[in-house]
Amino acid sequence: MTFSPKSYYIGIDLGGSQIKYGIVSSSGKVLTRGGRLTPQKSGRRGVIDSLVEIADNLLNFARKNKIRIRAMGIGSPGCIDINSGKVLGSCPNLPFWVGTNLKQIFRKFSLPVTADNDANLMALAEAKFGAARNCRDVVCLTLGSGIGGGIILNGEIYRGSNFAAGEIGHTAVNFLGERCKCGRLDCMETYASANAMLKRSQKLARTDKKSLLNQLIRKNGNRLDVPTLFLAYGKKDRIAQKIVEETGETLSTGIANVVNILSPEMVVIGGGLVDENADIIKKIEKQVKQKAFPTATKNLKIRRAKLGNQAGFIGAAYQASQSSR
Amino acid sequence: MTFSPKSYYIGIDLGGSQIKYGIVSSSGKVLTRGGRLTPQKSGRRGVIDSLVEIADNLLNFARKNKIRIRAMGIGSPGCIDINSGKVLGSCPNLPFWVGTNLKQIFRKFSLPVTADNDANLMALAEAKFGAARNCRDVVCLTLGSGIGGGIILNGEIYRGSNFAAGEIGHTAVNFLGERCKCGRLDCMETYASANAMLKRSQKLARTDKKSLLNQLIRKNGNRLDVPTLFLAYGKKDRIAQKIVEETGETLSTGIANVVNILSPEMVVIGGGLVDENADIIKKIEKQVKQKAFPTATKNLKIRRAKLGNQAGFIGAAYQASQSSR
Repeated sequence: MTFSPKSYYIGIDLGGSQIKYGIVSSSGKVLTRGGRLTPQKSGRRGVIDSLVEIADNLLNFARKNKIRIRAMGIGSPGCIDINSGKVLGSCPNLPFWVGTNLKQIFRKFSLPVTADNDANLMALAEAKFGAARNCRDVVCLTLGSGIGGGIILNGEIYRGSNFAAGEIGHTAVNFLGERCKCGRLDCMETYASANAMLKRSQKLARTDKKSLLNQLIRKNGNRLDVPTLFLAYGKKDRIAQKIVEETGETLSTGIANVVNILSPEMVVIGGGLVDENADIIKKIEKQVKQKAFPTATKNLKIRRAKLGNQAGFIGAAYQASQSSR
Repeated sequence: MTFSPKSYYIGIDLGGSQIKYGIVSSSGKVLTRGGRLTPQKSGRRGVIDSLVEIADNLLNFARKNKIRIRAMGIGSPGCIDINSGKVLGSCPNLPFWVGTNLKQIFRKFSLPVTADNDANLMALAEAKFGAARNCRDVVCLTLGSGIGGGIILNGEIYRGSNFAAGEIGHTAVNFLGERCKCGRLDCMETYASANAMLKRSQKLARTDKKSLLNQLIRKNGNRLDVPTLFLAYGKKDRIAQKIVEETGETLSTGIANVVNILSPEMVVIGGGLVDENADIIKKIEKQVKQKAFPTATKNLKIRRAKLGNQAGFIGAAYQASQSSR
């Protein structure tokens, strides 16, 4: 009889608003998982304490359940030096986080630790266990408060020089002169992130008091969220339809640009409007096939992300498993 | 005594207007070279006959000079299946060329033959022997009648799915609604190729009869070429300055997009305006560093191509040398 103990890995996904985490098997199965709010107001020290506590809890869970944790991985916003573990670049949502060494946070656990950009790890998870399973070259977009981008080439995260590749949300796709929070003009993120959609919808709704959208916003205490926008869209509210269609056009233009540059097998889109309206993927796919080169779209598939908000920590755990083999 | 005979390779670069070719050593030294017009009007048969004649002549040269040719490589417009050698995709400048099998053309010579897209091979040559020597991740743009693009990742040509990657000239960088000859709206090529610059300059010059540019065009039999445009630019003609500056802005926007996606070590630009005005590279570099992410531009260099119109056949010969090792 051969004895084959299963290997397990901790994955932690630090985001601007939430930390998601879990214990994941080498085949991508999630054994346990959880989430908590990022203690933004407690600064760097508070976030570090929170991350250490999460790792402590997960290791206790493992001990109780007689599971061996072989390594841990962490995903974080910003540009991450995967060798040192240091956060090199800007994190508009966690400004105090730049300069933190992600690997050193977990030093006391005496386990191998890997660290990478959160969007890179989401793309990796979708390519290994999600929508793009078995695809070699994949581009992944996540539409949230911003637009995260990750690129998988030959089955591996592509980081380019200085670990900075994949910022597809910050390619210019319009020339209306809107300033993005990255400082650049006309980024895809400024027009097509979930936040951008909501902002533009509210502005338009204000100009048409009789519109369904305006009524829904007023009912909701003058606030708008993505489900409400799509409720109005589903009921054929003119403003909601205009915004969703314009957002689809912007996304398909930006995606067609990336497709002409990289010619991936698959583009995976998660978050924001696609979680609320699966049909939009079909529309975007059709538009990208009209806008990009026929040779580049011949084998192209555009698919909805499958792993939802678990993608980040699953990717982090997978990366840890690869480096500790 | 060790006997180490040098290895030589034939490289042929088929373009819409010219065929350039040479015999190249394994270290990139050009032993002999030449060029002739592409016999466009003779159709596919005529172009094939021309290519075979060129190969015949180069092999005769090699025999006379007691040089051993080990393999030959060809570059061609269009999307090339590098395994079969077949031209898969559109060649707007050589429409009859789609479907041709590039490897079979040279079958009678009983030598290993490699085939690839011309812009891919230019990028490869610049990365191995030109401006981007010793760089791992390189993006190469050639501004001619169109804008060719090639991507080198980890020192190798990146082709993506269906061999279609690298069409950076066909990313949308403006929203003025100009139709590109690829069928898409607002491609970089429509605004920033040498042809596009000349077309827009002529249109503007017509509206200002007193301008230096208008005078130069009339002197030149109502035609405008790139050197004349830059003559006017050098003499501070308002129209020429406006066009060159706008072209630089368009290029830097498109390049900043690619830099945020791929974060290469170097962007190499050849042809068109940079051959006539080396200073423009400095301007574009400055603008790209303003427009792209600081983390993505930290190590980035933007350089003028070094190999000129020899890059295509040098890249073809280099590729042949790699596959016949």
